[in-house]
Amino acid sequence: MGNRVNITSEFWARYRNLVRTEMIPFQWNVLNDIAGIKIEKERLNDEGIPNEKSHAIENFKIAAGRTKGTHYGWTFQDSDVYKWLEAVAYSLREKMDPELEKKSLEVIDLIADAQEEDGYLDTFYSILGIDYRYQSLAGSHELYCMGHFIEAAVAYYDATGNEKVLNVAKKAADNIYDNFGPEEGKIHGFDGHEEIEIGLLRLYHVTKEARYLDLAKYFLMERGKNPNFFREQAAKYEGPNALGGIEKMPDTYFQNHKPILEQETAEGHAVRVVYMCTALADLAATTGDKEIFEACKRLWEDITKRRMYVTGGIGSTVNGESFTLDYDLPNDTMYCETCAAIGLIFFAKQMLRIEPKAEYALVMERALYNCALAGMALDGKHFFYVNPLEVNPLKSLRDPGKSHVKPVRPSWLGCACCPPNLARMITSLDDYVYTIFQDTVLINQYIDSDAKLALTDGKVEIVQRTNFPWDEQVAFEIKNNSKSQAKIGIRLPGWSAEVEISINGAPVELVSEKGYHYITVDAGASVEAKLTFSMPILRNYCNPLVSEDIGKVAISRGPFVYCLEGVDNGTELNCLRLPDDSELNYEYDSSLLSGMGVISGKGYRLQASESKDSLYTNSKPVEKEAKLKFIPYFAWANRGENEMEVWVRE
Amino acid sequence: MGNRVNITSEFWARYRNLVRTEMIPFQWNVLNDIAGIKIEKERLNDEGIPNEKSHAIENFKIAAGRTKGTHYGWTFQDSDVYKWLEAVAYSLREKMDPELEKKSLEVIDLIADAQEEDGYLDTFYSILGIDYRYQSLAGSHELYCMGHFIEAAVAYYDATGNEKVLNVAKKAADNIYDNFGPEEGKIHGFDGHEEIEIGLLRLYHVTKEARYLDLAKYFLMERGKNPNFFREQAAKYEGPNALGGIEKMPDTYFQNHKPILEQETAEGHAVRVVYMCTALADLAATTGDKEIFEACKRLWEDITKRRMYVTGGIGSTVNGESFTLDYDLPNDTMYCETCAAIGLIFFAKQMLRIEPKAEYALVMERALYNCALAGMALDGKHFFYVNPLEVNPLKSLRDPGKSHVKPVRPSWLGCACCPPNLARMITSLDDYVYTIFQDTVLINQYIDSDAKLALTDGKVEIVQRTNFPWDEQVAFEIKNNSKSQAKIGIRLPGWSAEVEISINGAPVELVSEKGYHYITVDAGASVEAKLTFSMPILRNYCNPLVSEDIGKVAISRGPFVYCLEGVDNGTELNCLRLPDDSELNYEYDSSLLSGMGVISGKGYRLQASESKDSLYTNSKPVEKEAKLKFIPYFAWANRGENEMEVWVRE
Repeated sequence: MGNRVNITSEFWARYRNLVRTEMIPFQWNVLNDIAGIKIEKERLNDEGIPNEKSHAIENFKIAAGRTKGTHYGWTFQDSDVYKWLEAVAYSLREKMDPELEKKSLEVIDLIADAQEEDGYLDTFYSILGIDYRYQSLAGSHELYCMGHFIEAAVAYYDATGNEKVLNVAKKAADNIYDNFGPEEGKIHGFDGHEEIEIGLLRLYHVTKEARYLDLAKYFLMERGKNPNFFREQAAKYEGPNALGGIEKMPDTYFQNHKPILEQETAEGHAVRVVYMCTALADLAATTGDKEIFEACKRLWEDITKRRMYVTGGIGSTVNGESFTLDYDLPNDTMYCETCAAIGLIFFAKQMLRIEPKAEYALVMERALYNCALAGMALDGKHFFYVNPLEVNPLKSLRDPGKSHVKPVRPSWLGCACCPPNLARMITSLDDYVYTIFQDTVLINQYIDSDAKLALTDGKVEIVQRTNFPWDEQVAFEIKNNSKSQAKIGIRLPGWSAEVEISINGAPVELVSEKGYHYITVDAGASVEAKLTFSMPILRNYCNPLVSEDIGKVAISRGPFVYCLEGVDNGTELNCLRLPDDSELNYEYDSSLLSGMGVISGKGYRLQASESKDSLYTNSKPVEKEAKLKFIPYFAWANRGENEMEVWVRE
Repeated sequence: MGNRVNITSEFWARYRNLVRTEMIPFQWNVLNDIAGIKIEKERLNDEGIPNEKSHAIENFKIAAGRTKGTHYGWTFQDSDVYKWLEAVAYSLREKMDPELEKKSLEVIDLIADAQEEDGYLDTFYSILGIDYRYQSLAGSHELYCMGHFIEAAVAYYDATGNEKVLNVAKKAADNIYDNFGPEEGKIHGFDGHEEIEIGLLRLYHVTKEARYLDLAKYFLMERGKNPNFFREQAAKYEGPNALGGIEKMPDTYFQNHKPILEQETAEGHAVRVVYMCTALADLAATTGDKEIFEACKRLWEDITKRRMYVTGGIGSTVNGESFTLDYDLPNDTMYCETCAAIGLIFFAKQMLRIEPKAEYALVMERALYNCALAGMALDGKHFFYVNPLEVNPLKSLRDPGKSHVKPVRPSWLGCACCPPNLARMITSLDDYVYTIFQDTVLINQYIDSDAKLALTDGKVEIVQRTNFPWDEQVAFEIKNNSKSQAKIGIRLPGWSAEVEISINGAPVELVSEKGYHYITVDAGASVEAKLTFSMPILRNYCNPLVSEDIGKVAISRGPFVYCLEGVDNGTELNCLRLPDDSELNYEYDSSLLSGMGVISGKGYRLQASESKDSLYTNSKPVEKEAKLKFIPYFAWANRGENEMEVWVRE
């Protein structure tokens, strides 16, 4: 409640319409197994991946007793429905749609029917053996799924006021509270995949009921105290196979190697790490706990200063979809899951609640406009799971170590976490534009929009007018309807050296406080502010400790990282070179890929040895001049299967 | 029989002594589980790898009924004993050792006792269920093991005249002949791992019995005709688990995707490919079949011109220890198994029998002096399986995709194929120096030695005096004791542009026929020939189609590829650069690593970003001058755990 941000940005409206008109209906059909598409496996030749159908809605119908049958799909299949519901909630908040509302109310009824009497909610165990619930938490994803449901329920309640869905969520959370905690007789454990912690904190924010905050804190602080927890459960478990064997993964995979407050580096499954960090930072912001904030900062620094790709992607290896070690950022074998980039955005959002520092908003922008957005095709119906920085389709096909790196976006994947995650991210983008403290608003993202924001003493209205991410200025109209003076922090773009702000037409001297320039607006007053910045084409260099990027350059302009694609530059992109004195030119091409900024310049192409039959020679290969054409990274792979490269030899 | 080459080379004598005094006794202890060493797994965290002990001799004792117990180890554990026996045979041929002979005769008795009445020989099935033999050939390795035994038996017979071991081999081969072939009632199939074909051809060469030649040809020509063969067997199989599940590997893994004569590219498990090619080339040389030779040539070209590392290593991925695709040669995730380099040497040796072309001898030299030799530590007691071209120990430890790339040589591995393969290669090196046609001798390798070689009309003696691989000349004394004129082809080193030959002191005009300069020596005559060549430090460039090596250079001198090692050059070797105008100097350092050529020159080191806390910047990293020191690749990892790099930025 309270804050309302209406996004009018042309760039984002296109995406948000796509989600509403294409993605949400499409996902509905997938969840109901009527989409008529081929679901792809995440990795070739992996027999363990269930991909014949989604069956997600059918699982709920069976659990609700409406139809007969058995469970099909991953143990976390329920969460697909919840993430769909959450996206629907944001979509209804943006624009009411009676038909969609009807569908979602039916789904809520179905979920309520599938819920056990005591509040437990999970179709896998309801169908396959309720007696075994909570006993195989390494892979069961029960709390993970309920966490997603709680997020969806809070979002739906927030958008529509629907009490029923919130009550189902509270009942589920209460069941968890009854079963987990430090007290004797309760389970001293947690889920293999963090998410319930986020859900419980959101439920706390809306209900203010302390037990949800306590339970979230319990899960976070218990983690890592007993690294054997999952193995101990598995040794005793006799129930249905809930990703059995996953408990043999290293403790780091689950962030269960040591207590979170002692973790110095981001280890294990990248999505889990950033979900954990999101909850941890929310807890720090909510409680003001300094020690927890310090732990968040340590992990933030490790991720963003030593383990993050220039696209905002994270997760250096497909093995365990994990972090590896500092400065290890291979470009063609990494994971960089769309969900992980989204999770990093969640984390950044919570960090901004604790500390008003533009760095968080900048990383958010980097992940949003690059890795996360690349997760979806421009048609809104094809999705990347893995977001490489370098792709050769032949290698993806023939090298099993790269079979997870797909050169074109599939329609849907057996493990369908990313597409609905993107849907909820894009539909809730309004929540990422501003951060609100008692009397202060941080303007984090430049997005054309109209906002009404609730400060302690009343509302502030902010209108942003801008053609960002393409153009170089933002006009703000700020109206303080509250009873106190309001402070407005305008983020200064980190990628621009030439920034100006004028207030009511008069230039002001810039003062950067952690990357924000603050202006004050008296109670009842209005202000017109204008932010102008250059958006130069930048050459980005990586720390030489990252061996893969040595001697290479990545091109960016504004929030976008650019890449070379085969369709524009021919095959064997590695043979191309962009010399450091080559002039680069920017142009907006309205006919390309529904409107796209393009950067071009003179480069060189190495000539393959004269005869393809010689592998090693003692003469240096020669180069010929070649024109290089870069497009924004997020827009790659929308013109068929081809090579792609972000880091180019210089 | 016939040919005897006595190797006196200081360089090789050191290795051959190591094998005789260290490796053979050490392996004997391992095979008998009394070595007191820790056997390492090939990959971390792979539970399927049996590595508690070898148990290989014990398996034979159980199969022979001498002790009670059950089989332990891989299905191919027997071959460890056979490869040990083969190395012993060559070692006895070089230098009789009564104690070692006694041990080996006992082993032969043990093997004979373990052999079934009908000739079948395999401890796995003899112990676990003889009724299931030959029914799970995808992973059973029965024919593979018998192939290794036959090789050992022929070598032992050749060295000592022992008839018993040859008879055990013939009996085994006859059992295979009775069970496999095109006739009705026989199995229309072959082993998952090629090797029996090599053994049968060697048995044919010594016995001249046509059925062994026919059976080898049958196995080779049957392969690929029914890609479902292994899966059909597996569907029916009810016996003990013989690597069950391996039949699900792609058909290419087994070179079973299409008939061999139609295979255009080298596909699948690299060791299998080169073993297959070795037999195929032997068959072509033995029968003169042109179509088979063309198939050999196609595969040779694909391997050596498009899929071979500069070290002579092959196998671009750990997944299936396989080839991937043309020009895909990653330096830090490849397999480059020691056995595969040895197999490539076998293949080259057979190709030389068909076509007198120096290219084969050059590839043999490349693989021998680099990838194969790197498989063994200078102490003769530690071994690499995987021979990377770039290693960072931290990445091996923390990135599961590199856990197979070990930064130091383990004592022994669970799957112990490589060390005994190296032992037999080094002890039989005499067989690789020359190729003999009817009246022609090709001098392929420059190795200080005395040889008596049997031509059609009598013997030719060749003495080589050289300090190669370090020095730049070879003196030959050639004495033709045969009744006809002999042609001697002296290989011209492909890595030298300045080559001279003098005959009896007088320089001659060089005429290269496929890389050999031929001289004729009349019956009864003697000739003194001297080959002089420069051995410049070469900068090797890779075809730019190999993306990993673009902008990089590999240094070589003579047969040796050189590398940078951490102990000489500090950490973060990727930060080093060798500019193309930097002068390089060669020096032999007799105190380094028991005598080693060293190359040094001026280079530069990129400075890590000032603060380790910044990952991306817009200013180009700066360099500082640094001295680079290269050592031969084969000698790396003999001074503790550290980084290593072959391809250096230029």
